[in-house]
Amino acid sequence: MEFAEAESDPGTTRPGGRTARVRASVLRAAADVLAEQGFAHLDLADIARRAEVGKTTVYRRWGTTTGLVADLLLDMAQQSVPRTETGSLLGDLRANTRLVQRTLADPRQGALFKAVIAAATCDPKAAEALQGFYSARVDAWAPCVEQAAARGEVPEGTDPHEVIRAASAPLYYRLLTTALPLDEDAADRAATAAAAAARAGAYVREA
Amino acid sequence: MEFAEAESDPGTTRPGGRTARVRASVLRAAADVLAEQGFAHLDLADIARRAEVGKTTVYRRWGTTTGLVADLLLDMAQQSVPRTETGSLLGDLRANTRLVQRTLADPRQGALFKAVIAAATCDPKAAEALQGFYSARVDAWAPCVEQAAARGEVPEGTDPHEVIRAASAPLYYRLLTTALPLDEDAADRAATAAAAAARAGAYVREA
Repeated sequence: MEFAEAESDPGTTRPGGRTARVRASVLRAAADVLAEQGFAHLDLADIARRAEVGKTTVYRRWGTTTGLVADLLLDMAQQSVPRTETGSLLGDLRANTRLVQRTLADPRQGALFKAVIAAATCDPKAAEALQGFYSARVDAWAPCVEQAAARGEVPEGTDPHEVIRAASAPLYYRLLTTALPLDEDAADRAATAAAAAARAGAYVREA
Repeated sequence: MEFAEAESDPGTTRPGGRTARVRASVLRAAADVLAEQGFAHLDLADIARRAEVGKTTVYRRWGTTTGLVADLLLDMAQQSVPRTETGSLLGDLRANTRLVQRTLADPRQGALFKAVIAAATCDPKAAEALQGFYSARVDAWAPCVEQAAARGEVPEGTDPHEVIRAASAPLYYRLLTTALPLDEDAADRAATAAAAAARAGAYVREA
């Protein structure tokens, strides 16, 4: 769902049996509550009612609200769109930052991301799940830096994960600490800066 | 207090009368609760008890927990250490990122920052106060980029605020989305990257 098209919701287009449909309904309800009200308002009984799923099923399968957030983040990572290959580091990073920007600028998705980040600040299991989500996203995009190194666009020894994180970081910082617009200019600037710093050797691993 | 020495607490060394002492005690108690338990556990009656201040005083002066967080952020901005001038953009940015890194890597301060960021995700008044805090910090450091432009280190038209935000962003992103160490290497890399991108013209304002 996340980093996918904004209108796509968990499970709406996915095949699967009853178990998959139950999971999709529950995760959609959880994402709704997180986006609309935040982590503090997440309640398993309420989620069961919204998802029209038995309370016992929800408690048995997810156990706690943290367990539910962790599963939502797993689903978000699995539903993420694959990376774009444009043939240049700047093009690839720009595709990445525009995807992040569109996701965070979407009111529902932006609110959902704020909510899971907030949950992670006060709950170690949610933090671990969030780290897993970002780790998967960074892993998925890291090859664009490896390819850029192979093409000679960036110095050998450039840390691909640092470059990918550097491209996203300004957009999250903008979302969380400013009221500035999260627009395409911000996305392009973040990509341009990460590419320029990478070319200049800022992300070469220490020997 | 924040972005100051980690051991300095609100009000401990500040002069002032009873009103100032009350404020210092209350803000210190609020920072303690935020760092130890998070925004969800902030409660004015509990703060009054911890600060050994009358409940009526706390309710009358701060009104709500959000009002208290807003005042804490104001105090944090006022207590922040002034910027360092080293004579080069890279030196100045490194002084900045090391200050941010030391603050966020300190267990109490890191937890406090996570808590106020989380509070800002779910409360518009806390968000406004947080934006005010970062705006003040970015304003305080922006002149280092203006000086670098005057020295010819970065292209004319470079947006000083974007450069300062770019230097901090990777440290916050690392704190919030990864379990990676927030060490001096991370601080220096963030400064090097922002300086390199600025030199390459990545932060030149569109005409």
